[in-house]
Amino acid sequence: MHLSPLIDELIQALRCLPGVGPKSAQRMALHLLERTPDAAQRLADVLGRALAEVGHCSACRTLTEEPLCRICRSEQRDASLICIVETPADMLALEQSGIYAGQYFVLLGHLSPLEGLGPESLGLDQLQARLDQEPIEEVILATNPTLEGETTAQYLAEWLSHRDIQVTRLAHGLPVGGELEYLDGGTLSRALAGRSGFSIHQEK
Amino acid sequence: MHLSPLIDELIQALRCLPGVGPKSAQRMALHLLERTPDAAQRLADVLGRALAEVGHCSACRTLTEEPLCRICRSEQRDASLICIVETPADMLALEQSGIYAGQYFVLLGHLSPLEGLGPESLGLDQLQARLDQEPIEEVILATNPTLEGETTAQYLAEWLSHRDIQVTRLAHGLPVGGELEYLDGGTLSRALAGRSGFSIHQEK
Ligand SMILES: [Zn+2]
Ligand SMILES: [Zn+2]
Repeated sequence: MHLSPLIDELIQALRCLPGVGPKSAQRMALHLLERTPDAAQRLADVLGRALAEVGHCSACRTLTEEPLCRICRSEQRDASLICIVETPADMLALEQSGIYAGQYFVLLGHLSPLEGLGPESLGLDQLQARLDQEPIEEVILATNPTLEGETTAQYLAEWLSHRDIQVTRLAHGLPVGGELEYLDGGTLSRALAGRSGFSIHQEK
Repeated sequence: MHLSPLIDELIQALRCLPGVGPKSAQRMALHLLERTPDAAQRLADVLGRALAEVGHCSACRTLTEEPLCRICRSEQRDASLICIVETPADMLALEQSGIYAGQYFVLLGHLSPLEGLGPESLGLDQLQARLDQEPIEEVILATNPTLEGETTAQYLAEWLSHRDIQVTRLAHGLPVGGELEYLDGGTLSRALAGRSGFSIHQEK
């Protein structure tokens, strides 16, 4: 019960955006057509172009339209460190934090027996080739702190165990700014188990 | 500082959507490319097609790709009533409420001396032609309860005053479900001024 079949179709198509329900999709459709047709045309063009051209980096598997992504091309990065993440979005979160200067490898997924996702989809042949050829000394397992992420980290740790490479995992504990009251038991128990000595610096 | 120039461009382009900030745009871009490329392709196609084909209804000026919109084509609508709204979104809101069965006329804007928007952009020649040719008995002014909407309603009431047509305005008052505590003084004062007799139906 909308304005016209084509506008209906546009509203439906906008629903593919994450977090966009029927009301927002309707508002977006009318806004694009009525207020910002030039910007909307640019969006249609760029989206079409990105879908046609964006593929995966041949070294780290992140999303990029270039053969080798910006990070894998860089000579400023620490070649002895490689951080394994589940998705390009995870890689981007680490990059935007500005705290990491090593290499990446993107699994483009995780292990999930329930969803039938096994190790064959994680690109491990590609990772193996990099470990064989590059001067990597440490692999940081940065999969998500979820059931699937932990299972994947376990699997990778085992898969890496026969190599002379240090394997580390991101720490678990209290998120900065979080309140104990609202944290789940799993997080609290990991934070407690991982507690460390507290040093008091007194001013003279 | 994103994954690649083209993905950067896509994130920027998604910012034209209302309510989408840099973080959501980034999440949307990666989601479209990684998870739902087929739906994203459909979105790019439909958006391009809608921009090329959607124009305005020749009778009511709403957005549609058809010469005459669904409502103006319908023979079920009350031809004696015409409701004047500012935008196609306003028309859609009334339609979706299911409470109105007359005709519409969409101003595609409002009067705003500050923004330099005068009556010439409101399509009044078109409205005049309809009033001359159609059996319209009542014009409902349903512009927004804003400064510009009220100014526009005032102007239209005057513009219509020499005709033998009833001119009405949507009632102002308490929104259903609203709490007095959170309503502005203007709304409260209109609600008080428009108060009506309260009838008590007692059961025997
Ligand atoms: Zn790369
Ligand atoms: Zn129409």
